[in-house]
Order: sequence, then C-alpha cells, then structure tokens
Amino acid sequence: MIRLGIVGYGNLGRACERIAASKKDTFELVGIFTRRDPAGMTSPFGTPFYGQDEIEMFAGKIDVLALCTGSANDLTDLGKRCAAKFNTVDSFDTHARMREYVADMQAVTEKSGTLALIGIGWDPGLFSLMRAVFGGVLEDGNTQTFWGKGVSQGHSEAIRKIDGVRRGVQYTIPKEEALAAARAGRGEGLTTRDKHLRECFVVAADGADKAEIERRIVTMPNYFDEYDTVVHFISEEEFERDHTAMPHGGFVLRGGSVSGKGCSLEFALKLESNPDFTASVLMAYAAASARLYAAGRRGALTILDIPAVALTDEDRLDYIAHTL
Amino acid sequence: MIRLGIVGYGNLGRACERIAASKKDTFELVGIFTRRDPAGMTSPFGTPFYGQDEIEMFAGKIDVLALCTGSANDLTDLGKRCAAKFNTVDSFDTHARMREYVADMQAVTEKSGTLALIGIGWDPGLFSLMRAVFGGVLEDGNTQTFWGKGVSQGHSEAIRKIDGVRRGVQYTIPKEEALAAARAGRGEGLTTRDKHLRECFVVAADGADKAEIERRIVTMPNYFDEYDTVVHFISEEEFERDHTAMPHGGFVLRGGSVSGKGCSLEFALKLESNPDFTASVLMAYAAASARLYAAGRRGALTILDIPAVALTDEDRLDYIAHTL
Repeated sequence: MIRLGIVGYGNLGRACERIAASKKDTFELVGIFTRRDPAGMTSPFGTPFYGQDEIEMFAGKIDVLALCTGSANDLTDLGKRCAAKFNTVDSFDTHARMREYVADMQAVTEKSGTLALIGIGWDPGLFSLMRAVFGGVLEDGNTQTFWGKGVSQGHSEAIRKIDGVRRGVQYTIPKEEALAAARAGRGEGLTTRDKHLRECFVVAADGADKAEIERRIVTMPNYFDEYDTVVHFISEEEFERDHTAMPHGGFVLRGGSVSGKGCSLEFALKLESNPDFTASVLMAYAAASARLYAAGRRGALTILDIPAVALTDEDRLDYIAHTL
Repeated sequence: MIRLGIVGYGNLGRACERIAASKKDTFELVGIFTRRDPAGMTSPFGTPFYGQDEIEMFAGKIDVLALCTGSANDLTDLGKRCAAKFNTVDSFDTHARMREYVADMQAVTEKSGTLALIGIGWDPGLFSLMRAVFGGVLEDGNTQTFWGKGVSQGHSEAIRKIDGVRRGVQYTIPKEEALAAARAGRGEGLTTRDKHLRECFVVAADGADKAEIERRIVTMPNYFDEYDTVVHFISEEEFERDHTAMPHGGFVLRGGSVSGKGCSLEFALKLESNPDFTASVLMAYAAASARLYAAGRRGALTILDIPAVALTDEDRLDYIAHTL
C-alpha cells in the first residue's frame, strides 16, 4: 500500500483522487492539502482536507506527495518545500524552466535523501520519452511535436478576459499538411504556428459587438496574432452541450533514414479528458516512485531516467516474458 | 570510441557494418566474425573477417559484440558463449523462449561480470517498450500489436519451397477494420489472424501449374490456412522491380479509459528497410551498452530495464532541458 497525499484540488488533483479512490489495494489516500480553508472543502470520496501549511506535520506518514497545483510558480516553490520532507511526483510543464527546476530539486533531494519525479504527464512526460527514444534510435532525422485537437487553458482564459465574452474556449488543432510533411521527414523548420490552427468558440454577452470581439481575439499578441485563428459565436446551450469537456492529445513524429532507407516513427495520443489521463500517468509514476525508493533510488528524476520495469509490481522475468 | 565486433554477416550484420562505418567517431569496427571461410569474404568497407571460432581471441579487444546471426537456435548458443567473455547486444526475437534466454544470459553474465542487452530491435524492442509504457500509464485498457505492411521472411521462404515457384515474397498487412477496433479500445479477443492479411507475389517457373501453386499456398498449415491469403502471379521483371526491398513496420495500439474518459495511445512504425532500421536500434543500444557498462551496470537487460538517458552522450541536464 502506498500512502498518498495530494497537494492542490483543481482538475488534476480531483482526477488523482478519483484514481486513488478506485485503486484501494494500491493507494491509501491520507489527505488532500489545499490553499483554501480546509473546513469549507468536501470530497465525493470523503477524503480529509488539510491546509498546505500542515503538510510538514505528515512527515513519515506519507510515502509520496502528488503535486497538483496549477501555476508553475507555485509548483517550483512547493516542490522544493515538499521534497525536503517527502518523495514527490509532479507534472511541472514549463519547458523553459525545466533545467533550473531539476537542478534545484536535485540539490534539495541530495540533502533530504528523498526522491522527486519531475515533469510526469504526457508533455512533458510520454512525449518527452518518445522524443528521446525516437532521436536515440534514428540519429539521422527530424522530430516534430504537434498538440491537439485539444483545449488550451491559457488561450481560453485569454479569450474570456475580453469585454463582452461570457464564455469561451480555444482548441489547438494540428494542420494536416504540416503533419504530412513531418511524417515524410520534411518537418524541419516548421514552427509551432506553421503546425497549428486555433479555433475559438465564444458565447457573447447580450448586445456585445461580435465583430470587435473577433478582431480583439485574432489580433491578440503572442496568443493569436501569428496563427490562423477561426472564431465561432455560439449559444450558451451549444457551449454547455459541446464545449465543457477537456479533450486533448497530440503527436510526436520523427522522419528520417538509415543508410539511405526511409523510416517514420509516430506516437499519437487522443484523450477525452486531459486532466484524467495526466492524473493516470502521475499515479502510475507515484507507484513507480515507491518501488524506486524501496530499491534505493534517490534524487530528482525525469521520465527519461526511469526504466519501464518501474511501472509494474510483477516479477521481472514474468513481465519480460509477456511484454517483450 | 566503442570497439565493436559483429557476429554474422547476413542482412542485419551488413546493415550494422554500414552504420558503424558511417559513424567513425563513435565506433571502431574491429572485425566481422563469420561461420563461412573468412578468407573468402569481402566487405565494401574493408572490415577484416575472422572465423567464429576465433571470437574468444579478441577478449579485452572488443567493447561490445553485436550478435547478428539469423536463426534463433544459433543465437541462444552464441549469446551464452559470447557473454562469457564480452558485452553483447542482440535482437533475439523468439517471444516464446524469451524468459529462458534472459534467465540463461543472466546466469552467464553473473559469472563473467559482463553486460548483455537482449531483444533489441523493434519487435521485440521499441514495440515492447510501447506495450510496457502504454500498459503502465493506462491500466484500464487493451493493447494490440499489428505487423506490416511488410515482408515476412519465414512465410516468403515457405512459398519458395513449393514446386514450380521460382521467386516468392509474402507481405503481412494489417486489416483496417481490426486497426479501427483496436484504436477504439475494442481490440480484445482479436487474434493475429483476425488482424492481418497475407499477400503473396510469385514468379512461377515456365509451365508450372499456377492453380496448384496457389492451392498449396493458401492451404499450407500454420503459415496460411487460417488467414485471408491473396496470391498474385507476376513476371520476373516485375518481381525484380517492385519486390526485392525489405519494407516493414507495424502498430502498437492501446485503447481504454481513465475514470470513464476514453484514451487512445498509438505507436506507428513505417520502414523502407527492416534490417537497416533494426541495425540502427541495435547500434544505438550498443553505444548505450558501453555507457551503462562504464556506469557499473552488469547482467542481462532488456529495453524495459534501460532508461532513455542511456541513449545519449550529452550532459544529462542539457539533454533533459531540450528533450523533456
């Protein structure tokens, strides 16, 4: 049994709780740590809530903490604080700050003797593993990552801040012609904007100027101005019916050649719910963390440092016999 | 520099030699060990040939031996013999005997203090890694492996043994409806024969009874009788032009759900040349073997035991920073 704590109770924390609650022979859910007032929180599974200032009181009573807070800034501080006392798993996803965060967590865990698994999800996470393995086995080639079709939370929030927008969601969609080029090994030089469309669904407030809303979306710097962006105005009912789920997915493609012979490697992911699948990866590696810790591993590790056998409790030879 | 030896000089051994010869800053190709008379062998790269009985004389002069003999029986004996003196990499692919071979190699390497990497290629190999990771991160689901479109050497040889067949090749082809079912998570219960067609191209000898050749192919026990098999008779010229390459590939699919939300994971591989890509994977892990050995790893390992970071010489933090 793995004594699990969950820090943060947004979409990801709730999804982790659902998985832990459904695997009572693997996880004992010790508690959820929240920045809100724990007295005001309720869980469908009756999990106890505690304040985030109470985490350290659980030292020795939790085997692994799943760090599920939303913002990257919160997460780096929380990660360093938690790793000083606990084993942790997180899905830190700010690629530009990954080196700094891994180095910081390495320094913390060296002092504390804990194990921190960093960037565990699907990107970073499974997509990182694919980029590493594809590049490793096919040296002469080009790797391209595509995201979607799926909801971008950041772009959706940017839309919702515009005057006159009642509800809004933005889907990132890979362009078919860019996918075809990447599959053929002609992906080099493609930028994120060459590879993706942005499609927005907006519920406008009564009497709002739709033409102005659309103009403000498609010209928004960094978010939309350099992309092909499509804006649809829909009714509240249609939004509620069709656009409240959080689908996502994407592709990692590598095209190249060995001794002049073409090779194409492709990983494709399609998810009805981004937070539920991310939580599934995080909980799989939370269990792996307990196995790795028991085997003596310490420090700050990423998915690139962890062999696949860490994902199972099965006897190694049995596992190899039916998996290899 | 990795001092490399290649044992066996068929399609795979030749493909390994091409790669090693093209990476002179990574590999020093010490020699090729053959069961034929080495005096009668020539290489386009001028690599020296030796008899397989001379392998042991190179103890201490080779960092890793790539075992590239064709038959599974030869390979297990050769593997045990070579691992007693050398680090090895092989693409042993008899799934049914994998447990026994890994256990035997574990016993040999424990005595010799060497490192043996087993089942390194694409299936077993990359496909095994996908099956392990997909199953690990998505517990509630079903994994299906498809092969093709590609040449099956065993089935092609079976055709060529029929009287009146001058040349013959067999392509294994995934069935689209089975792929669709597996992608939707409805792959459970599909057998290899539900999932694949067998398409044969045959050059008949002058005056041969084509109807009888076709009957003997489609009714051949184990090889064809339980499959949907299509036979085409073609000219020598067409065969030479269109059917002398060795393309292959396939798919690993897992469909399932997390907390009731659907997920689909797919790995797809398309290869113009099966032996060249298999050699590329084998050479990448030959280099990994040298790194792992230098880091103190010993024993019999599979792709499931090896973290992705072993595939690079780059500084670990640099690699994580641009890959994760």
